Amino acid sequence: MDIQTSFLDRLFESGLLIDTGIDGLYGRSGQFEDVISAFERLIYGFGGADGAEAIRFPPGMNRALFEASGYMKSFPQLAGTVHSFCGSEFDHTSLLKCMEVGEDWTKDQEATDIVLTPAACYPLYPTVAKRGPLPESGALFDLQSYCFRHEPSKDPARQQLFRMREYVCMGTKGHVTDFRQSWMDRGLEMMKAVGLDVVIDVANDPFFGRAGKMLANNQRDQNLKFELLIPITSSANPTACMSFNYHQDAFGAKWGLNFADGSVAHTACVAFGLERIALALFHHHGLNTAEWPQSVRKALWG
Amino acid sequence: MDIQTSFLDRLFESGLLIDTGIDGLYGRSGQFEDVISAFERLIYGFGGADGAEAIRFPPGMNRALFEASGYMKSFPQLAGTVHSFCGSEFDHTSLLKCMEVGEDWTKDQEATDIVLTPAACYPLYPTVAKRGPLPESGALFDLQSYCFRHEPSKDPARQQLFRMREYVCMGTKGHVTDFRQSWMDRGLEMMKAVGLDVVIDVANDPFFGRAGKMLANNQRDQNLKFELLIPITSSANPTACMSFNYHQDAFGAKWGLNFADGSVAHTACVAFGLERIALALFHHHGLNTAEWPQSVRKALWG
Repeated sequence: MDIQTSFLDRLFESGLLIDTGIDGLYGRSGQFEDVISAFERLIYGFGGADGAEAIRFPPGMNRALFEASGYMKSFPQLAGTVHSFCGSEFDHTSLLKCMEVGEDWTKDQEATDIVLTPAACYPLYPTVAKRGPLPESGALFDLQSYCFRHEPSKDPARQQLFRMREYVCMGTKGHVTDFRQSWMDRGLEMMKAVGLDVVIDVANDPFFGRAGKMLANNQRDQNLKFELLIPITSSANPTACMSFNYHQDAFGAKWGLNFADGSVAHTACVAFGLERIALALFHHHGLNTAEWPQSVRKALWG
Repeated sequence: MDIQTSFLDRLFESGLLIDTGIDGLYGRSGQFEDVISAFERLIYGFGGADGAEAIRFPPGMNRALFEASGYMKSFPQLAGTVHSFCGSEFDHTSLLKCMEVGEDWTKDQEATDIVLTPAACYPLYPTVAKRGPLPESGALFDLQSYCFRHEPSKDPARQQLFRMREYVCMGTKGHVTDFRQSWMDRGLEMMKAVGLDVVIDVANDPFFGRAGKMLANNQRDQNLKFELLIPITSSANPTACMSFNYHQDAFGAKWGLNFADGSVAHTACVAFGLERIALALFHHHGLNTAEWPQSVRKALWG
């Protein structure tokens, strides 16, 4: 915890991250953003030739689709619903009085139709399902969005609002598992190019509660999730900077992603935690990009 | 309304915007994003030499600072508070039962410390105030973020989650009003370069309720807000694609933005509605950027 806090303090002092008074909610400097942009170009350098369809969803999604996704079963503690004031002028007067005396004014806010996006690919599956049957050759998408997870922390690598870049593949089992393997290889290659020592290990999602432990064990036993780990604030507990997820036919069946013959598609996704990768770079190469090793600067800025 | 809906339908059919089932919440295609990126480069082409400090805040801000901003006084209907599940495993079981039978599960969500950003510059003022006195020469910032406004609409130019690019100037009255005037001139020049016919007119914010009408009249009478208007779905009611706002010393006084001698700074901001500008371009030049006039393509892509 001390190492996390001291790294966060150094990031604040250098101006790379900007304190907003809330743990896990930070502004970013121009230099920080330059690293994110450069790394996104590097990702595109590795993946661009695959011809993925680029889609950018905003940081919120349709609440009904979010509910259908089952996210509240698995990760209720992380979700963020968006609420608004829907009252009259009279209600507004009460609200302002409530604020004035320091009482809780948020209890009368009403849920809107929007929930913050928990992972960049959540809005994609129902979107693709609406298009009709998948081509036999499958489909590939390139996504990026801000995502929200309610887990306030002093660890700068655990932010409440952060960006996730993803490639999502839909097709046969062989197709999507090959896709996942190719990105594990590329992930190692990319991180080597930017001078980061990494390992890939089997992993599980942070499912909620005791029942969630079984889901986590099952996920590990079946090798459904791998993570690319980089030590940032702890070498004993390195940070997951990429994840490689095989969903079997779970999302295909849930959303109705079918081939023309009616068989259900398998899906896999590969996700980059962009802030985490930037933080790993700053942690390993120093807080001033001008002083980074020449080979790393070349890989990022050409 | 019909014209708005038919433009929205054409945007969906062309794939430039992607229907999520919620009015005002859309995915964007790669081509749509290319236009946004190109226009942001054009903005930087006009403003880059001014040497503004770039900061990128995430799409949410500190709720306590949002409360202090007075936004709930003026625009309560537009704000979005972020709420989360903070219960036990027992509470989780109830929540899932509630969802299963189709009852309102959101009423037990609790407000977090985060509110969606209503305008890109809201998190900036308290950030700058914490740094201490402003230099005599003032300060200039370059911001961009997704913003939220709860106003579901079939007008594609009125989205609930959209991006705002801003320049914010802090200094003396003369300094910040000169800044505002220079961007009104630049705005006209930029829009001419991309083949859009525009006018600039005095305007007011959509203050809530009957009391808000007085605030709006006062704002107009003092010429505090101008908008650059482009017809998109209606020539009678053209859409505000840029706004030019002079806050006098209101934000300076509220947040404690002072010079070393203790005098209060004036502030002004210039905001670009990036989705609106992209939509104006698609509306005027057609839905396929490859077929846009050569001069427009040159201004955007060189």
